[in-house]
Amino acid sequence: MVQQELEVMGIKAKEASRILASAPSNQKDAALESMAKALREGANMILEANSKDMEAGREKGLSKAMLDRLLLTPERIEEMAKGLEALIALPDPVGKIDSMWTRPNGLQIGKMRVPLGVIGIIYESRPNVTVDASGLCIKTGNAVILRGGSEAFNSNVAIAGVISSALGKVGLPEEAIQLVKTTDREAVNIMLKMNKYLDVLIPRGGAGLIRLVVENASVPVLETGVGNCHVYVDDAADLEMAVRIAVNSKVQRPAVCNAAETLLVHSGIAEKFLPLVAEELQAHGVELRGCERTRKILPNIKAATEDDYYMEFLDLIMAVKIVDSLEEAIDHIHTYGSGHTEAIVTDNYHHARAFVQKVDAAAVNVNASTRFTDGYQYGLGAEIGISTQKLHARGPMGLEELTTSKFVVYGNGQIRE
Amino acid sequence: MVQQELEVMGIKAKEASRILASAPSNQKDAALESMAKALREGANMILEANSKDMEAGREKGLSKAMLDRLLLTPERIEEMAKGLEALIALPDPVGKIDSMWTRPNGLQIGKMRVPLGVIGIIYESRPNVTVDASGLCIKTGNAVILRGGSEAFNSNVAIAGVISSALGKVGLPEEAIQLVKTTDREAVNIMLKMNKYLDVLIPRGGAGLIRLVVENASVPVLETGVGNCHVYVDDAADLEMAVRIAVNSKVQRPAVCNAAETLLVHSGIAEKFLPLVAEELQAHGVELRGCERTRKILPNIKAATEDDYYMEFLDLIMAVKIVDSLEEAIDHIHTYGSGHTEAIVTDNYHHARAFVQKVDAAAVNVNASTRFTDGYQYGLGAEIGISTQKLHARGPMGLEELTTSKFVVYGNGQIRE
Repeated sequence: MVQQELEVMGIKAKEASRILASAPSNQKDAALESMAKALREGANMILEANSKDMEAGREKGLSKAMLDRLLLTPERIEEMAKGLEALIALPDPVGKIDSMWTRPNGLQIGKMRVPLGVIGIIYESRPNVTVDASGLCIKTGNAVILRGGSEAFNSNVAIAGVISSALGKVGLPEEAIQLVKTTDREAVNIMLKMNKYLDVLIPRGGAGLIRLVVENASVPVLETGVGNCHVYVDDAADLEMAVRIAVNSKVQRPAVCNAAETLLVHSGIAEKFLPLVAEELQAHGVELRGCERTRKILPNIKAATEDDYYMEFLDLIMAVKIVDSLEEAIDHIHTYGSGHTEAIVTDNYHHARAFVQKVDAAAVNVNASTRFTDGYQYGLGAEIGISTQKLHARGPMGLEELTTSKFVVYGNGQIRE
Repeated sequence: MVQQELEVMGIKAKEASRILASAPSNQKDAALESMAKALREGANMILEANSKDMEAGREKGLSKAMLDRLLLTPERIEEMAKGLEALIALPDPVGKIDSMWTRPNGLQIGKMRVPLGVIGIIYESRPNVTVDASGLCIKTGNAVILRGGSEAFNSNVAIAGVISSALGKVGLPEEAIQLVKTTDREAVNIMLKMNKYLDVLIPRGGAGLIRLVVENASVPVLETGVGNCHVYVDDAADLEMAVRIAVNSKVQRPAVCNAAETLLVHSGIAEKFLPLVAEELQAHGVELRGCERTRKILPNIKAATEDDYYMEFLDLIMAVKIVDSLEEAIDHIHTYGSGHTEAIVTDNYHHARAFVQKVDAAAVNVNASTRFTDGYQYGLGAEIGISTQKLHARGPMGLEELTTSKFVVYGNGQIRE
């Protein structure tokens, strides 16, 4: 039953994706405009649906943080609409050919950006993902099949209904945005294997969801990532700058993936640096957990366990470890890190260069907060997430990462000898 | 036991990959030179090992084609060595930054090409893959874990021993090239799930192997592809050119993935064109299998079944179908094709443009044989295979496709406000 429903959605999505793939930018931008308008016009209906979800959530005893993620307000709907409009201004990557070349036999060859086709998004409680992900997919000429969390079911049905209808108003197939209308968990398992209809799956949510998808999907996955990020304070660091960067990396928004979790400190400056940084971090409410050597300098902090170094705390907690060299810092990062964002603070040219060359992560920063790993901060525009995998996309994934390429070959009768 | 062995190989490969990632091009090129030399010096030993595999293969009753794929000769070893040397001349993609930009806050940001890390190659009977794949991995700074077919076991052990020792002679870790030294099929199943050590898996072989890997791997896969390629002869085609391209696409090397399998013919020129092309194809020994309308024009050919349109014959067999429009041709291609290479023969500008825009495949050719889909033919150099997937790489995969990127961010104390 669920299988059959999804099969039908897959067929429709594939058909819609063919039409979207050839839709000119004008039309896709008009669709985004139409979607934004529909969201504003449908705001009351969406808020009503959301209040049902909120009520059910309260009854189920969802945490305050979960309820906040679930909540929609007129302001949040306006934000979603503005997010769609912001996409209009961005350049459409589809159809772009970076270079063409001519072979000795006269064949002209180029690599053209084209949509991926049909994208499956599996996400958790935040209903704004329904809009954000759909907008990015439409802008890049992809059809999308959305599977949101059960807590946000009514909100998602209302939102998806409104924005998919908006596509019809500009002559695009409404089936380009489809929501899986069942909370049966079986639907997720089916989507993981829908290679025939889905070109890629993007999980958005907690570590558990991402692991489930990565481990079980036969459809190729774009993994948006867990961030166990480090700040390494080198012996040649400007200590004042190091305090500023460590504090900002930890506290500016602790619940996100590009926040720092562990502070690595070179032993040469530890005695001087640790009291300075601890004072600032603690003033911001950060709980420190240190290695043995750290605790000799900061006797009042908790001991860090091995597990702490693996943790993405997503909270005002920071592990601290003293290392004796740049190499030890890099080894620690490779052992415990998640390959998201790694920062060094140093005034030494060679140390900076070695760190950039040797550290294997989506982003390697010299003298800059880990919090900069973000599509907007990079100047790349809207992003669908930050990839910590190595294939296809690594780091902030924007419009270009929602496309693939095809070779176009123009000849006048060439054959291979 | 096998699990443990592979775990140890994984750890060693990861360590080796860190060293290789920072190895300068000079050193990697010296390694290729050293590997070529070692192959030549070890030729007798390799041939001896190969003769054991050939003997066992004959006893097992392997087909003539299989035995030919398995066979090594002094000439074939020389070819492998030359293949390694040819890589030296190619530019090293590692460390390349296509562009850097500066943000309003002064952060300088760029995207640097870096190695993938550790690549797992699972392949079948051809022992030359051991050399070719290793060469491509070393050139691009990756470590490799090879799992060859059991038929070529002795040959692979000999070859891998020789070329990995050659790495040591130029100061690189020999563990950068490791062969799984068991024919236990369990080893493949373990590799499919070795996410901790393998950054990517590349299966090279028949459709069965590729399906096994794609369906069961949790490690990201680069799929090298099945090719069910089409030649569509438009009503506005130059018929002489169409004959030339259809024949070349089918017969120039029928056993490879970029050979054409189905000929689609517009009804407007079918009566004139089909006898011309049939004569040429049949003169080359091609068996034709036609749709009903085709068989009214060519009454002596076999009927094509629905299955025939799905088939990658890899043989001198070609399905033929009459279509009434460009759209019908494109629909047929999307229904039955594998997204490898699709060609149109036409003199009509608008038809050519529509075909290029609408057909979803790794390569879309206008007035050129499907046989051109190849790294060398494109002028891109050596390839590890032709990808028919959409993520990361599509079409011929060369050196660049064996790399990923990382963002490098240079600051002077920036924090996020």
